[in-house]
Amino acid sequence: MAVVVMKFGGTSVADVDRIRNVARHVKREVDAGNQVAVVVSAMAGTTNQLVSWVREASVLHDAREYDAVVATGEQVTAGLLAIVLQSMGLQARSWQGWQIPIHTSAAHGSARISGIEGGALRERLAQGEVAVVTGFQGLEPDRNRVATLGRGGSDTSAVAIAVAIKADVCDIYTDVDGVYTTDPRIVSKAQRLPKISYEEMLEMASSGSKVLQTRSVELAMTNHVRLRVLSSFVAPDKMRAVSLDNLEDIGTIVCDEDEIMETHIVSGIAYAKDEAKITMLKVEDKPGIAARIFGPLADASINVDMIVQNVAADGRHTDMTFTVQANVLPRALEVLKAAKSDIGNFDISASADIAKISVIGIGMRSHAGVAAKMFKALSDKGINIIAISTSEIKISVLIDAAYAELAVRTLHSLYGLDAD
Amino acid sequence: MAVVVMKFGGTSVADVDRIRNVARHVKREVDAGNQVAVVVSAMAGTTNQLVSWVREASVLHDAREYDAVVATGEQVTAGLLAIVLQSMGLQARSWQGWQIPIHTSAAHGSARISGIEGGALRERLAQGEVAVVTGFQGLEPDRNRVATLGRGGSDTSAVAIAVAIKADVCDIYTDVDGVYTTDPRIVSKAQRLPKISYEEMLEMASSGSKVLQTRSVELAMTNHVRLRVLSSFVAPDKMRAVSLDNLEDIGTIVCDEDEIMETHIVSGIAYAKDEAKITMLKVEDKPGIAARIFGPLADASINVDMIVQNVAADGRHTDMTFTVQANVLPRALEVLKAAKSDIGNFDISASADIAKISVIGIGMRSHAGVAAKMFKALSDKGINIIAISTSEIKISVLIDAAYAELAVRTLHSLYGLDAD
Repeated sequence: MAVVVMKFGGTSVADVDRIRNVARHVKREVDAGNQVAVVVSAMAGTTNQLVSWVREASVLHDAREYDAVVATGEQVTAGLLAIVLQSMGLQARSWQGWQIPIHTSAAHGSARISGIEGGALRERLAQGEVAVVTGFQGLEPDRNRVATLGRGGSDTSAVAIAVAIKADVCDIYTDVDGVYTTDPRIVSKAQRLPKISYEEMLEMASSGSKVLQTRSVELAMTNHVRLRVLSSFVAPDKMRAVSLDNLEDIGTIVCDEDEIMETHIVSGIAYAKDEAKITMLKVEDKPGIAARIFGPLADASINVDMIVQNVAADGRHTDMTFTVQANVLPRALEVLKAAKSDIGNFDISASADIAKISVIGIGMRSHAGVAAKMFKALSDKGINIIAISTSEIKISVLIDAAYAELAVRTLHSLYGLDAD
Repeated sequence: MAVVVMKFGGTSVADVDRIRNVARHVKREVDAGNQVAVVVSAMAGTTNQLVSWVREASVLHDAREYDAVVATGEQVTAGLLAIVLQSMGLQARSWQGWQIPIHTSAAHGSARISGIEGGALRERLAQGEVAVVTGFQGLEPDRNRVATLGRGGSDTSAVAIAVAIKADVCDIYTDVDGVYTTDPRIVSKAQRLPKISYEEMLEMASSGSKVLQTRSVELAMTNHVRLRVLSSFVAPDKMRAVSLDNLEDIGTIVCDEDEIMETHIVSGIAYAKDEAKITMLKVEDKPGIAARIFGPLADASINVDMIVQNVAADGRHTDMTFTVQANVLPRALEVLKAAKSDIGNFDISASADIAKISVIGIGMRSHAGVAAKMFKALSDKGINIIAISTSEIKISVLIDAAYAELAVRTLHSLYGLDAD
């Protein structure tokens, strides 16, 4: 017997037929004697419709009311899934965030989960009842209003529920059957990773791999929740039910580093094309200039990713290149223009025709030369590196977008990730 | 200054533009210094969509889950209206049934309101904040699940909120501009009634007039809440704000009988075409036979309306004619067939080609001869009466559907209701 959280996203519950498919996955687990809590997203398209109504009502709007409207999407799915489960002869009930309750911060629209009262859930699970929980939402501190966690929040809800019910595994059903060494659409020899560490998964997520939401991985890491990425489109009767000795058969397990016996130096190659590069030339090189540039951007909630600063030939000026999300590029340029009186004179150029390629692997910690090998391989292919940023287990480079696929393929081979 | 409840149905909030129109009605009241609670239905079509998903999930379903799904419709409207009101510079917040809370019975899907904690609402209203309340729903006794009141329940929610905040008037905005002496589509000379008593309104509602939901009128009557029926499609700036001395200017006020100075003998003519007639011939006339026929129908939750029993010529048998809602006719016939062993032999015929015409008026209590006059007028037009039922303030007759319009027009003239 295992305690299992199963999370299904919007495309897996897009209509009643697909909800029925989800129910079959759930039934397989219950029939095997497992205790099951299911966390569901809104039916695909629903959240977009709700958000567009809110925006039509008013571009500027009270986040509390936004939450009241948008949280209904998951409530519909949870009720429908509970009904289908009951029709298959299972005991089930839907739980809305406020009913459990899932406590959150007061930051409507992007609230954080502060705690879950899991007692009632655990009691019902022990009686064999399936708990169908609305993802993406909870009850804010004044206990009278619904708060949502922001896009992708259902993954986080699932991990939080897993913590609350002390689940053995938190299975995230998606439209892919696991985490790959890189995007299989670009590299046909990409391989599914049976296991990956939380740290690597976090770097993958922040480097463009969309499989799991970053916050959910952080929460899982902090609480040592074993996450697993699975496909919901595999026929429910073609999968074995969860048992503690067969977790590795399918999907990808995201877990503590020390659960992974054999680590590769590099586990995966990620890429992102949704960033844009801003280059500021001939900025006066005075103390505090970085704060004068990045302060106003931060005030405008614009995240800056990679930063490269070069001293210009005259020694009195500096050139600064950095990246922001492409969709906020126009706003970033406006903010910088407005800050000109504070920054002083500069020339500026921007481009969204760039790609960020990241090499990720926990083995880097103990292996030198990974970066040098990377730079040489790219150089051999004639790919120019615009900027570099590194962490303990990741090296990212910024290159021309045109070379993105070539770079990914080159690096995938370079680090021995190609399947036979 | 007045305390006003404004209730808007599904067609009045069918899209964001119409919600904006509703907001203008609300703003007019707030600008005039009134305290306003608004009760809203789901956007037209939404509830049907939600119900059809539930049915697709399972024909037989847990009413608690049905409620969890279907109650989301009003939650969306309430949030959107609050956002639009705020964008017009008003203070507003949405209140879901469980947040107030509106307490209900445990009868999911057709719960009754058992009480409302109005303290928080009254406090916010006194501070000038508009309360936007989800109609149709509340919190059931175990305080952890949403219960809905059934179709049309938003009218009842509005009256209950009016009781809780001690409103001066509960304005029900609909697609008609008041209650008419009869359906203006049939009788062009039909007139709007400035006032009508609760009792008459109840008889109108149960006799086919769809303006107000019966339970809401009952609740208003019990608590002496002044109801008013208004059109939401009149331009918001073409209506005067509520003040206690101009309520009668527009719409129809539903109120205590003693608030109506001049009563007519007959206030209105209602008709219903959604009933069907069942005639059972040659039923053995033994004691308890009525119970053997109507018991099984009641057990199957089939309401019987008009009943006529005649003794057959042989003195040992009886003929029984009664009406049921047309949509349950096939089920009623099955129930009777199944009960044949208990009832004994009988012949049966049924028809949905009938109409019920009702003459309603509080003045009947003190005026004799209303019925005799009615029967003669119908007879003069060659209209045969199949069955008759009466209450203190109503006479209903069952006739062939083909004569329905003729009968309504004849009676409307007969009792002096035609406009000049």
